[in-house]
Amino acid sequence: MRVQRQGVTLWKEWLALLVAAWLAAGCASAPQTADPLPSWNEGPVKAAIVKLVDDTTRTGSPDYVPPPERIATFDNDGTLWCEQPMYVEVLFTADRIRALAAQHPEWRTTMPFKAVVDNDQAAMAKLSGEDFLQLVAATHVGLTSAEFRKLVADWLAVARHPRFNRPYTDLVYQPMLEVLAYFRANGYKTFMVTGGSLEFVRAFAEKAYGIPPEQVVGTSYEATYAFTYDVATTRAEAKVMLVDDGPGKAIGIDHHIGRIPIAAFGNSDGDLAMLETTTNSPGSRERPRFAAFVWHTDAAREYAYDRDATVGRLNVGLDAASRHKWRLISMKSEWKVIFPYELAK
Amino acid sequence: MRVQRQGVTLWKEWLALLVAAWLAAGCASAPQTADPLPSWNEGPVKAAIVKLVDDTTRTGSPDYVPPPERIATFDNDGTLWCEQPMYVEVLFTADRIRALAAQHPEWRTTMPFKAVVDNDQAAMAKLSGEDFLQLVAATHVGLTSAEFRKLVADWLAVARHPRFNRPYTDLVYQPMLEVLAYFRANGYKTFMVTGGSLEFVRAFAEKAYGIPPEQVVGTSYEATYAFTYDVATTRAEAKVMLVDDGPGKAIGIDHHIGRIPIAAFGNSDGDLAMLETTTNSPGSRERPRFAAFVWHTDAAREYAYDRDATVGRLNVGLDAASRHKWRLISMKSEWKVIFPYELAK
Repeated sequence: MRVQRQGVTLWKEWLALLVAAWLAAGCASAPQTADPLPSWNEGPVKAAIVKLVDDTTRTGSPDYVPPPERIATFDNDGTLWCEQPMYVEVLFTADRIRALAAQHPEWRTTMPFKAVVDNDQAAMAKLSGEDFLQLVAATHVGLTSAEFRKLVADWLAVARHPRFNRPYTDLVYQPMLEVLAYFRANGYKTFMVTGGSLEFVRAFAEKAYGIPPEQVVGTSYEATYAFTYDVATTRAEAKVMLVDDGPGKAIGIDHHIGRIPIAAFGNSDGDLAMLETTTNSPGSRERPRFAAFVWHTDAAREYAYDRDATVGRLNVGLDAASRHKWRLISMKSEWKVIFPYELAK
Repeated sequence: MRVQRQGVTLWKEWLALLVAAWLAAGCASAPQTADPLPSWNEGPVKAAIVKLVDDTTRTGSPDYVPPPERIATFDNDGTLWCEQPMYVEVLFTADRIRALAAQHPEWRTTMPFKAVVDNDQAAMAKLSGEDFLQLVAATHVGLTSAEFRKLVADWLAVARHPRFNRPYTDLVYQPMLEVLAYFRANGYKTFMVTGGSLEFVRAFAEKAYGIPPEQVVGTSYEATYAFTYDVATTRAEAKVMLVDDGPGKAIGIDHHIGRIPIAAFGNSDGDLAMLETTTNSPGSRERPRFAAFVWHTDAAREYAYDRDATVGRLNVGLDAASRHKWRLISMKSEWKVIFPYELAK
């Protein structure tokens, strides 16, 4: 009865499903020889990614995963874009604190603000995670999400990387853009799960990665809603709601996504809980799972760092990768190019 | 350069976009005379919904909205399913508290637990919102999301509505199912924004409404992540992270979705901030917006309640609807049928 009465609607939903299935099946009419990951060298890691996508989307595959369950999660800093010599949001935050300092004379004498206002590198190097969250919260407080994103976008338009002398959004990893597009073309939803602030990342994630705001899981702040003179605003408070890093990534995935990812990509110990949640949750064995760390091994083309790094340390994670048979994506050996602009040369 | 190297991937993304555009354009080959909202009586409300979808999806329309911005949000209790004589999660919570009481002898003497354990209706009627959150948190604490959803699903399978003598999931509103399907068929993402707990709603939202877990915004709890004996678990704490009701709905939309909805459907004062955020945010005027309250006016077929109700009160909202020209969906006059099972008669 309902089928007959909802003719157009159901017909369209059916068509959408059919197209999804057709795309998932690999598009019989598309040239099967074209390489979905052209910036990757041939080898076991690339082969494992292609096999995962094929196994989970090919009709009749024993490891077939229905489209709604096709979820892939990606860390941002060091996984999708360059995080050296310093996390980009830290640089934005320092610039923003300095820009706001004139309105906050008390910051000249109060830590952690004093260290940033004075540009005291030694003092800044000693700031704790708590200190940093206090600084970040101070850049958010009182702003709507739209206002904060505008500040970030304006800053990203003029800021330049100290070594590569390019906008930070030029320093995204071409091979990972290909992975994002490859997963999406096969019916996966791609989520970012980042320690960065929601609105910092949302300022560029859709344009840079094709990841829409509703698929960004990040560090969030308490907020206050007001309806004043017929204008509705939600403004951040100087108090963190969720630190979406380390164990917070497992909680962010649980709250925001509500499914175990099929695939997860990280690059540091901060991503450990995300990868563990992907491969070792009680329900993980019901489907194929894939977890990988981008491993920064290329000092010539990008940076080389792991166990001893202060930014993006990969120490416990290296041992866990070996133990759980997660993949290590060595940038030096796996990637033909690092940044998209290299392709235009 | 990138286009050539990513042949298959880009071709598939292009095809997906083409199909989305084609669906959005109304599928030229589909019969345009078929009614997408057959359970709705003809009238200004139905016409307004159809006009909104047409205006925002027809190529060349001055109010055209690109697919990524097509977001529609829906309250659950009283908007998508019956909330009388009591919110379904309250009934589940009371049953669960009683089931757990044997393990918590202290509840026999501690409010608010005592009221529920004793099934003391007078005492329960006096419980505050804080009391209720304490009860709900006690049903979540220590459980993973999967464990909690299983408890809810098992309960929903046997619980029956006291008046209609049917499972609660039978008591969803057929006309709203049509609205959900109609929006989705036209490229909208449909989100639930509910005061209910995330995992309570996720236990049935995908099956009942076609709303996947990652598109449920709800009341959430602090959680603890652990990796023990190679098993990754995220378990709820007895502390609320976000009460996704009233002003919390604006915050939930801001954090989880990160866009202003094009359309929002609620039914009570608890939805006011969601509707205000939709039509009256600083960026709202850049696009068409639509807001509506389902108005419970049908005592014969469902329930009739608004300004004086203790469950699902619509008081301030009725005045706001008049002032902001939001739509009122009078169930008695707008809906031909209320529940899907009426169609099978």
